[in-house]
Amino acid sequence: MKLYISALVLLLVPILATGFEVPCGVDQAIRSTVAQHTSKLGLECTSVTDRSSYASCPSGYTTVSCSCGMGCGSWDIQTPNKCHCQCGGMDWTTATCCRISAQ
Amino acid sequence: MKLYISALVLLLVPILATGFEVPCGVDQAIRSTVAQHTSKLGLECTSVTDRSSYASCPSGYTTVSCSCGMGCGSWDIQTPNKCHCQCGGMDWTTATCCRISAQ
Amino acid sequence: MKLYISALVLLLVPILATGFEVPCGVDQAIRSTVAQHTSKLGLECTSVTDRSSYASCPSGYTTVSCSCGMGCGSWDIQTPNKCHCQCGGMDWTTATCCRISAQ
Repeated sequence: MKLYISALVLLLVPILATGFEVPCGVDQAIRSTVAQHTSKLGLECTSVTDRSSYASCPSGYTTVSCSCGMGCGSWDIQTPNKCHCQCGGMDWTTATCCRISAQ
Repeated sequence: MKLYISALVLLLVPILATGFEVPCGVDQAIRSTVAQHTSKLGLECTSVTDRSSYASCPSGYTTVSCSCGMGCGSWDIQTPNKCHCQCGGMDWTTATCCRISAQ
Repeated sequence: MKLYISALVLLLVPILATGFEVPCGVDQAIRSTVAQHTSKLGLECTSVTDRSSYASCPSGYTTVSCSCGMGCGSWDIQTPNKCHCQCGGMDWTTATCCRISAQ
């Protein structure tokens, strides 16, 4: 009986350690893995130029700015990801396209 | 006594497995959950236009570019999130506002 | 013998709980830690101005847009992170530089 109680007490140690609370080592591993992954996240941008008043970003990218020919600074971003240069007789439009990447 | 030692040895298995090192299954679960969450992160942008030389992004967004009326391409971003078009007699200003979203 | 079997059965509980499957508490901790970290991620931007046709973003930042003197709206981003204003006799160039930050 004495042995049985001893065994039971010893058994409770891992059960309590794992069943009801997160062990210290696991918690540190979670923080470390999360920090590793988030530190790898970067902002990746590319440009797309078209010989018209419009330029579209590829799928997966978000349009963040537009540049226009003829020195024109008037533009708008049309849904979902299309640059539109507003000055007349536009010769080229460039869209700057960004996304979050896991480097 | 022999039984007691046998029990003790068996007890050490889960203690060693969980108390001092991260179990294999837990490590895989961490990586999998982190990867799932980070793959859902996206760059979300919206535009705000005002009929003046200034346009401000809403709270939680960061200003990444400005567009100006009258073809003007000279602008600056004022702290924290305000677009300012520098050409005289400006009729409109648009701020492109982005944030990181969990899609 | 009866006692030995009882001890063995009790021993299997923590082994099965930790060795082959991720315990519930650990899984919740992973999700919670990941969510905490990703909610802290922000888009941080700064500007760099140079008195020429070019302006470069600091290391670790990505160029997302350019602004030019003389009202000029024609620009391009040169690899890796340099703004180039295309109009002649440019007096200043500003690069808007962004990165993902853990706030």
